[in-house]
Amino acid sequence: MGVASTDVLIRGGRIARIAPDQTAPEGVHVEDGWDALLLPGLVEAHTHLDKTLWGMRWVPNSAGPRLIDKIDNERQNRQALGIDPARQSARQLVQSLAKGSTHIRTHVDVDTVVGLAGIEGLLATRECYRDAMDVEIVAFPQSGLLVRPGTLELMAEAMKLGSDVVGGLDPCGIDRDPKGHLDAVFELAQRFGKPVDIHLHEAALLGAFSMELIFERTRALGMQGQVTISHAFCLGDPDTAMVDGLLEEIAALDIAIMSTGSASRPVPPVAKLTARGIRICAGNDGIRDSWGPYGNGDMLERAMLLGLRNNFRTDPEVELALAVCTTGGADTLRLKDYGVAEGCQADLLLVDGETLAEAVVNRPERRLVVKRGRIVARAGRALVDAP
Amino acid sequence: MGVASTDVLIRGGRIARIAPDQTAPEGVHVEDGWDALLLPGLVEAHTHLDKTLWGMRWVPNSAGPRLIDKIDNERQNRQALGIDPARQSARQLVQSLAKGSTHIRTHVDVDTVVGLAGIEGLLATRECYRDAMDVEIVAFPQSGLLVRPGTLELMAEAMKLGSDVVGGLDPCGIDRDPKGHLDAVFELAQRFGKPVDIHLHEAALLGAFSMELIFERTRALGMQGQVTISHAFCLGDPDTAMVDGLLEEIAALDIAIMSTGSASRPVPPVAKLTARGIRICAGNDGIRDSWGPYGNGDMLERAMLLGLRNNFRTDPEVELALAVCTTGGADTLRLKDYGVAEGCQADLLLVDGETLAEAVVNRPERRLVVKRGRIVARAGRALVDAP
Repeated sequence: MGVASTDVLIRGGRIARIAPDQTAPEGVHVEDGWDALLLPGLVEAHTHLDKTLWGMRWVPNSAGPRLIDKIDNERQNRQALGIDPARQSARQLVQSLAKGSTHIRTHVDVDTVVGLAGIEGLLATRECYRDAMDVEIVAFPQSGLLVRPGTLELMAEAMKLGSDVVGGLDPCGIDRDPKGHLDAVFELAQRFGKPVDIHLHEAALLGAFSMELIFERTRALGMQGQVTISHAFCLGDPDTAMVDGLLEEIAALDIAIMSTGSASRPVPPVAKLTARGIRICAGNDGIRDSWGPYGNGDMLERAMLLGLRNNFRTDPEVELALAVCTTGGADTLRLKDYGVAEGCQADLLLVDGETLAEAVVNRPERRLVVKRGRIVARAGRALVDAP
Repeated sequence: MGVASTDVLIRGGRIARIAPDQTAPEGVHVEDGWDALLLPGLVEAHTHLDKTLWGMRWVPNSAGPRLIDKIDNERQNRQALGIDPARQSARQLVQSLAKGSTHIRTHVDVDTVVGLAGIEGLLATRECYRDAMDVEIVAFPQSGLLVRPGTLELMAEAMKLGSDVVGGLDPCGIDRDPKGHLDAVFELAQRFGKPVDIHLHEAALLGAFSMELIFERTRALGMQGQVTISHAFCLGDPDTAMVDGLLEEIAALDIAIMSTGSASRPVPPVAKLTARGIRICAGNDGIRDSWGPYGNGDMLERAMLLGLRNNFRTDPEVELALAVCTTGGADTLRLKDYGVAEGCQADLLLVDGETLAEAVVNRPERRLVVKRGRIVARAGRALVDAP
């Protein structure tokens, strides 16, 4: 690192001064920094707060192997399992906070069974924890937008209620009508003046086809810089000529990419995207939900998994994996005043490590998590209560 | 699980009785089991105890991208970094023990620079911790067997000193003489009456070619059941016809396969190998060494990584990933009297979880680790000292 020890003065929720050997102004509370590393708050840029089973009894996973099996299984069992979106989102939010995340973008299911209950639950959770976490809500048509009539109207309602981003998914795979699906998603975005974040699991040429349709609409509507493509497995294709062509368009249209660093699917190559100046962020995706049992909300662990998946070994490489989980997320969510610099919002964490890479591979207990200047977690434990 | 609560009586280092509501015989020490899950000791079936940097200051990784870069970098820098094989192997052994491993197979470098110092260091560590851990030593020609004259003689010395297994690696890639390399490895095995464990990073057709040479020698020498192939990336090839042909031979020759579940390389498909009755084990491989910074010796975390890599989501699937790290390792190391059954050696751990799958995804602190009836770790901490 070569970064010297310093003091940080926080005032009014912002970083007022970074300099060594400061004398604390009268009345200012002083916290020891234990010579720990000071990081900007971690950014959880893709998760599903509304449907986690976190804090509930263990539920053996019972979904079939296909994507549609998982979608159907979840929609059908959500009620029987007693997954209350407000309660469950609050539980995962508090867990994420204890692990040092200070911002979350969450996709929230909107469908003809759950209706707007997920959105309403998230709005309640966001309000309840507004001083502890910034939450961005993506209205997400998980079960399809056109294939289940009534969903489009619910999506519009979700936007009116206060969702921040229009979601979409697999234009070919789920709605089986890529033109119709994407026209509807972009029409909603235009109508409500909001950005778009589309789940694209479609791999290889099918994913590339859907991406091209996204490019066309982004360009035609002047939505450069307002589109995120999540997963983007087709960018991990071995056909590098195809991938390079897609990356050129992605860079030109300033589209952001979200990767979980999935170990079992092709994934966007982080170093290659970064070298092209493409914004790339990461998320834990579903945490202990009916899709799968893994996850604990830790974005440092996600950085490790990204590093393992991308075969990152040197310190600069591992630091890049971490940067995806900090500034990459901030750049995608267009966070204002994010970072460890004077004037920035005081969203910070302290974690032990000789270097950032050591912090990623060790994933130690978070010593302190600070949200807008307020201590929200200490020694790995949240100081706000979960239901 | 559906497994009922029970009591376990341990006598003379073995499990004497498993039955509920036992009355402790006079003079027998009683430990509360906290209703935790009782597992057989985890088996670390592939690591490199001699060259970990665990417990030393952080060393930024400086190796180049190719396999041979990592090999050369390590051989050249081992001394400058002050990696003492006895001290370092002891540190990682104690860390592994705190995470619940009760058996370790370690590959130990033998080359013309380090000579037999690695083997001697491991022999000292094995003796020192003989009551806390079973250690199996593979004499491993990491820098090549024929390409660096003098190595073959050192390998023979390593076997005479007490190594248990003859190692080998990448017959084409490193020695550039697959016939010569494998003839030498199998000759050593025959001379000393020991099994073989070969690192095979070679992917696709090249790996398949080397495997066929291993098959030929295994069959010709009657070494069925005495050969392990580690990594075996070629078994993760998308050419399933080729892979199926290899698996048929592997099953017929009772060759064991070791997988770390690498996220960045093709890997052997665990479920497919298991369905064919092939023994498959797992290991953490290098832990924080000059190859890469990851790892903490936790075989429950390795089970999670195997699960993620193999897209295991249901409880039985995640339990299979765990079984690779317990019985799969025991089957590969040919451990006698391994398991949670009356008469077995009392190598056990207690870990919280409603189900085994929950223990894998949570990786909680190990409540208790028992080696031959003796408590060697409690509440996540080893009760034996590391240097």
